[in-house]
Amino acid sequence: MDLFEAMKERRSVRRFTADPIGDGDLERILKAGCDAPSWANTQCWEVVVVRDPATRAALSETLSEHNPARDAVKNAPVVIVACGRKRASGFKKGEATTVLGDWLMFDVALFLQNATLAAHALGYGTVHVGLFDHAAAARIVGAPDTVQVVELVPLGRPSGPAPKAPPRRPLAELVRYERFRD
Amino acid sequence: MDLFEAMKERRSVRRFTADPIGDGDLERILKAGCDAPSWANTQCWEVVVVRDPATRAALSETLSEHNPARDAVKNAPVVIVACGRKRASGFKKGEATTVLGDWLMFDVALFLQNATLAAHALGYGTVHVGLFDHAAAARIVGAPDTVQVVELVPLGRPSGPAPKAPPRRPLAELVRYERFRD
Repeated sequence: MDLFEAMKERRSVRRFTADPIGDGDLERILKAGCDAPSWANTQCWEVVVVRDPATRAALSETLSEHNPARDAVKNAPVVIVACGRKRASGFKKGEATTVLGDWLMFDVALFLQNATLAAHALGYGTVHVGLFDHAAAARIVGAPDTVQVVELVPLGRPSGPAPKAPPRRPLAELVRYERFRD
Repeated sequence: MDLFEAMKERRSVRRFTADPIGDGDLERILKAGCDAPSWANTQCWEVVVVRDPATRAALSETLSEHNPARDAVKNAPVVIVACGRKRASGFKKGEATTVLGDWLMFDVALFLQNATLAAHALGYGTVHVGLFDHAAAARIVGAPDTVQVVELVPLGRPSGPAPKAPPRRPLAELVRYERFRD
């Protein structure tokens, strides 16, 4: 698929068929994530692939009842639990090198943008789920203290009508030239 | 360009020709960034496009003398100063909704992954620069307190031989199934 088409057309998908995801496709999606750059090539991303329905159900209960992604986590054939190894990205000799501290959120996002675009190109839907009880999810997947759970990403064949594109801010509103104006 | 090819072939580029970047290409690159998803579609990304040589030189001095990207910031025809509006992504009614606090680093990374892939597809090189004096850079571009400077991204036609692909961790090292193992 054309790069610009993939970026333009990928939507957040929260309804999935029960079709399983082949190992080959899953590998292509995760390898696309790994193609992303990272801080000094630290590649702090760590992933748990969850297929077990009981684990998916448990993870879905870390979302509030009103979260529209709750059923997506429960019903998608695969949930990617995207994590970052702490104190690697943005660190040197154990010390943060910038005022922004740990850059794991940044690098995990680069990984996931690639992975979710790859999923779209292969005919799968995904949604970024960031609003849940991170500590509870970490317990469910047995994440060690050295690893931060960042997102749950349900993955599967889309079911139902394609979601509409949400509106975007016009470029003129978010871009300025040379410096911010008062 | 094919999506998978773009993700696989894009490299960090630190040497540029003096060729200017047309407004049309720059717009395509920034619009590709805007196609990225964001927390509740908050789109907290804010961008300063710097072409002025004096400003680029000043920004380059916010990097240490040993940073191989220092000359890239000085010499690239364009430097994108990528920022995030604070207390939007991950927030609701002024309060952080997760233990991860402000998700601006995450959303700015989604934006930049799209933008840097788009640049590559259009024949431009980019490099993520995260290691610099963020407070000094914010003063140079006049960023208000409500905005966090995250990265400097030099952008231009690549000069010299193509950089080699850095090694990637094997998938088996970073992916586990169902849960972390002890």
